[in-house]
Amino acid sequence: MLFWADMTMLDAARVHALLASRREGFSLAQPFYIDESFHALDLDAVFLNDWLFALNACEIPQPGDYQTLQVGGTSVVVLRNPHGEIKAFFNTCRHRGSRLCMEPQGHVHRLVCPYHQWVYDLDGALLHARQMPPDFERIGYGLAPVQVEVICGMVYICLADPSDSHPNTPDLSRFRQAVTPYIAPHQPERTKVACSMTIVENANWKLVIENNRECYHCSGNHPELLATLVEFALPDDAHGSQDFRQLMDDKARQWDSLSLPHLPADGGNEFRCIRLPFHRGAVSFTADGSPACTKLLGELTEPDLGSVRMFRVPNNWNHFLSDHIMHFRILPLSANQTELRTTWLVHEDAVEGVDYDVETLTSVWRATNDQDARLAANNHLGVASKAYVPGPYAPSEFMLRNFTNWYADKLAAYVEHASSKPRTIALQVSNG
Amino acid sequence: MLFWADMTMLDAARVHALLASRREGFSLAQPFYIDESFHALDLDAVFLNDWLFALNACEIPQPGDYQTLQVGGTSVVVLRNPHGEIKAFFNTCRHRGSRLCMEPQGHVHRLVCPYHQWVYDLDGALLHARQMPPDFERIGYGLAPVQVEVICGMVYICLADPSDSHPNTPDLSRFRQAVTPYIAPHQPERTKVACSMTIVENANWKLVIENNRECYHCSGNHPELLATLVEFALPDDAHGSQDFRQLMDDKARQWDSLSLPHLPADGGNEFRCIRLPFHRGAVSFTADGSPACTKLLGELTEPDLGSVRMFRVPNNWNHFLSDHIMHFRILPLSANQTELRTTWLVHEDAVEGVDYDVETLTSVWRATNDQDARLAANNHLGVASKAYVPGPYAPSEFMLRNFTNWYADKLAAYVEHASSKPRTIALQVSNG
Amino acid sequence: MLFWADMTMLDAARVHALLASRREGFSLAQPFYIDESFHALDLDAVFLNDWLFALNACEIPQPGDYQTLQVGGTSVVVLRNPHGEIKAFFNTCRHRGSRLCMEPQGHVHRLVCPYHQWVYDLDGALLHARQMPPDFERIGYGLAPVQVEVICGMVYICLADPSDSHPNTPDLSRFRQAVTPYIAPHQPERTKVACSMTIVENANWKLVIENNRECYHCSGNHPELLATLVEFALPDDAHGSQDFRQLMDDKARQWDSLSLPHLPADGGNEFRCIRLPFHRGAVSFTADGSPACTKLLGELTEPDLGSVRMFRVPNNWNHFLSDHIMHFRILPLSANQTELRTTWLVHEDAVEGVDYDVETLTSVWRATNDQDARLAANNHLGVASKAYVPGPYAPSEFMLRNFTNWYADKLAAYVEHASSKPRTIALQVSNG
Repeated sequence: MLFWADMTMLDAARVHALLASRREGFSLAQPFYIDESFHALDLDAVFLNDWLFALNACEIPQPGDYQTLQVGGTSVVVLRNPHGEIKAFFNTCRHRGSRLCMEPQGHVHRLVCPYHQWVYDLDGALLHARQMPPDFERIGYGLAPVQVEVICGMVYICLADPSDSHPNTPDLSRFRQAVTPYIAPHQPERTKVACSMTIVENANWKLVIENNRECYHCSGNHPELLATLVEFALPDDAHGSQDFRQLMDDKARQWDSLSLPHLPADGGNEFRCIRLPFHRGAVSFTADGSPACTKLLGELTEPDLGSVRMFRVPNNWNHFLSDHIMHFRILPLSANQTELRTTWLVHEDAVEGVDYDVETLTSVWRATNDQDARLAANNHLGVASKAYVPGPYAPSEFMLRNFTNWYADKLAAYVEHASSKPRTIALQVSNG
Repeated sequence: MLFWADMTMLDAARVHALLASRREGFSLAQPFYIDESFHALDLDAVFLNDWLFALNACEIPQPGDYQTLQVGGTSVVVLRNPHGEIKAFFNTCRHRGSRLCMEPQGHVHRLVCPYHQWVYDLDGALLHARQMPPDFERIGYGLAPVQVEVICGMVYICLADPSDSHPNTPDLSRFRQAVTPYIAPHQPERTKVACSMTIVENANWKLVIENNRECYHCSGNHPELLATLVEFALPDDAHGSQDFRQLMDDKARQWDSLSLPHLPADGGNEFRCIRLPFHRGAVSFTADGSPACTKLLGELTEPDLGSVRMFRVPNNWNHFLSDHIMHFRILPLSANQTELRTTWLVHEDAVEGVDYDVETLTSVWRATNDQDARLAANNHLGVASKAYVPGPYAPSEFMLRNFTNWYADKLAAYVEHASSKPRTIALQVSNG
Repeated sequence: MLFWADMTMLDAARVHALLASRREGFSLAQPFYIDESFHALDLDAVFLNDWLFALNACEIPQPGDYQTLQVGGTSVVVLRNPHGEIKAFFNTCRHRGSRLCMEPQGHVHRLVCPYHQWVYDLDGALLHARQMPPDFERIGYGLAPVQVEVICGMVYICLADPSDSHPNTPDLSRFRQAVTPYIAPHQPERTKVACSMTIVENANWKLVIENNRECYHCSGNHPELLATLVEFALPDDAHGSQDFRQLMDDKARQWDSLSLPHLPADGGNEFRCIRLPFHRGAVSFTADGSPACTKLLGELTEPDLGSVRMFRVPNNWNHFLSDHIMHFRILPLSANQTELRTTWLVHEDAVEGVDYDVETLTSVWRATNDQDARLAANNHLGVASKAYVPGPYAPSEFMLRNFTNWYADKLAAYVEHASSKPRTIALQVSNG
């Protein structure tokens, strides 16, 4: 009989048991947050098996521009090919596995492995492998592709093998269709990066998401943010004051007149999209609510558009304002560390020092990110206690209920599927 | 058949086998010292299942004063409530598990979670949870209590669930009864902290204890300490000289005349308490044996009282002198790291710079702690060798025999008990 | 059914399956490079079960001189005894397991444990153990010996228990016989250390070896090295130019006239020994090919001898030139870290500042080591990718084929042997 080993051994029965004992509307059981074996499962079931936000296409504007990102142990290179298309590949040479691109970003004509100079074109084909024998068939040694979808300039990637997709690998079309009308007027594809910043939070990625999915914690922790942000997530929030409801009515009429959608999109547990106002008098996420960039996005002329808040599991939330866009991207580093990258984008023709100032543009969310990082780290430390038991979400934390329901379904489907097929290793042997 | 996995897999059979093959009077088998799985077992079987020294009550003198400490992944807050009683709680909010107190020490009127401001009183009751629905029953969401016992001001805590105590969870009453007569005259409850210092030793906690439980290593390593400390642990030590025996006789007569107990208490393997003299002419743990504090403790008037040496498994040893008290507390951080906190206490009315000087008070044991840390780390590195086999304790290491016997019994009882009940996870499911 | 646990659980069946599915001439499957469980297996099957290069005997010239090295968790002390013989012992006291020698190198008359001063002579016998009881039998508590072989001053050690040798524990005699004629003229035993340097590469030890076993990567990465080094590993390399063949012919004639062997020795997969020329005009590994030391080794008078390149699995490669010798020694620290120690030796009578200059002597290989460390680390990162699959070795990487064949055979034999005997733990119990 095993017992302490339970903490590190993971089998389908244990995952099913923990999911079966889950109480909806409560935070998850401890192992999901702190156990490295569950983290390995999260990588397989979620991060290697779903669409991840990678970057904005404007970050790699020219053919040959690339960026790399790291999903667990796996490095991916996202680039623009000579036809201007966004492509993504596993950043691993087919010779002996060296990483091809060693830098976070750069510009190349070909992908040349730094180790033995195997050369790939920007569509992944192996062009040249010096010293290989005459019978070497280059055709079989192209780079392994990563699936790409671009929605209004936002690049999503999926590392799952298309030929082995799990039954719950999502189709992005519903998401694309639902969010495009909200986002398109802000024209993310015609922006440029004003600032990009990466921090590491000492917390499980799900605690980082849970922290992001509620503003119940805002009043006690985010003074800078609450100078402009309305802390309610729905137009008809029961806690909203008479003033709030009046504000919502006023803004709804204005946005309707501009043909800008604002009511919550029906994203189920997968995504969320809604336009919500700032406090009366504020138009942007600045310390005093004044505009962060005098050049508005796309063809917009009205500065007071609130913000489109768009979230998609498992790793991306965004704000689309009249004058700038923020993309937030998380990537898990371990059970207790999560990387958060925040990107502030302005109109592609805006001029720094003239139209905008980086300090003014970024100060509120830099402070907010730091506050959230502290809260999430503290949450993680507390969850590791012997005394931790899942606790109840408040009504204003309804999006955490959505998130944990999605997560539980995702895991259950993955484990179900994995249990039904022969073990990977056995498969390798029989094919050997 | 598994084999390398043996190093990380732990089951009842393996623990029993290793304990069964143990040779009494020899150091433990390698895995007990270096294997992280065994460390996890130690946390469960020992540190979450026994009384731990936490602090002296004088460190939190006022209602609302608190300190936190970390036992494995579990944070505990020890505080003084409005009635002046010492209470302890798991430092984990019942909402989503955030730590409540983020600092090592502080002062509060209520325990307010920094995340969403749930408010607990200093007896652990949940007073307020804003935004929770009307049917939310606060009564079920009080802080999980930690058991507390105070002995002459020394605060011991036990993190075990009283309703699920293992058959070997100790009762403190025998300890309290035995040590009080030795300690009470020094009045630890009427002291104040002159200095507190925490270091991390790169060694398993059991090697730190073993290092502390013998003075066989003193002559080669502790010149500062041996200026005053008599290295024999028993009044009738066979290695003691004629001078030593004469010293013992003289001191025994003096202490008897002062009604101060000094003979070894019968603590079995659980604890030890004895009064032993300093070298003739020395009265305190200073470089030259002169007093460390001119204001004596409690009602004491005789400076030359030697020291009461009191130890209790698994994490605490102490010296009670005429002029100051030292508490030593260890807490394990991992299989190969142990935190040691040393606290020097003087009379509550002693004045720094007048009655005592911190440098003079602490220099001998600061040096000694550093020397012991080096020895323990070196011991740990050597034990990790392929060639390590348990070695024989010398007669002067009889307290290590006691300690390892206690440890083996503790583990055997825990594993026995754990094996006899259904697996935790199965239990959770059936109750789910 | 287990699945994620596969990543950390290791049994004979899994190892056999992975070895059975191995494709010869391709790099190894991912777990062999990145999984800590496989690393633990490598330590047992390879590093604790084969001959390892430790140092040159000239590094401990006097009786009582010692050096320590670390093989996994095991520290070894290599010393010269009073008879001038090289001996090695597990650096672990038989009392409670403390390391005896705490420094990387030093000089002692006896080995005295720093903890309780048990005293061993330089042949490992326990001379004195103070305070042990009269019936304590010192004879049973000598230091555990490590096997030693010295070949032309090069000290090889084997940590395997001679009484429990696996069927594939190698016999060094074939190696000794084969390489001595190549090495002896350079008289490594009559050298001294001019410089020694240790770096840590962030890569699995097998990737460090693979990096070393081919010069396919040289042209793209090692400009300093290629100023002098001929990048072909065989006299008849198919890629060699007419000039190269002419150079080989010229040098072969010269070396034959000096009775210096140069053709490849038949070392199978176990070792390699060959003499190869520098580029015409170069005689040493300096930036411009000029001599690094004006005093030639041993009785040599001809500076242009190319270099004897000698390699032995699993941890040692060397260059023997007319004017200096380089030993390279690797020791694995974890699945993803490897220590590389490089030692430059010159004639024992050479005078620094007169005959040689350390900067000139070492600059080329310091640069080369740093370049290789970067390549190996990048290779390791790429191999950790989900997309990594074993890739084909180029013809010029034939020595990697030899190495991986050797490794696979070594592992298979070890696992076979380990599977056939009762589990260690069971054995301990029945003997207990």
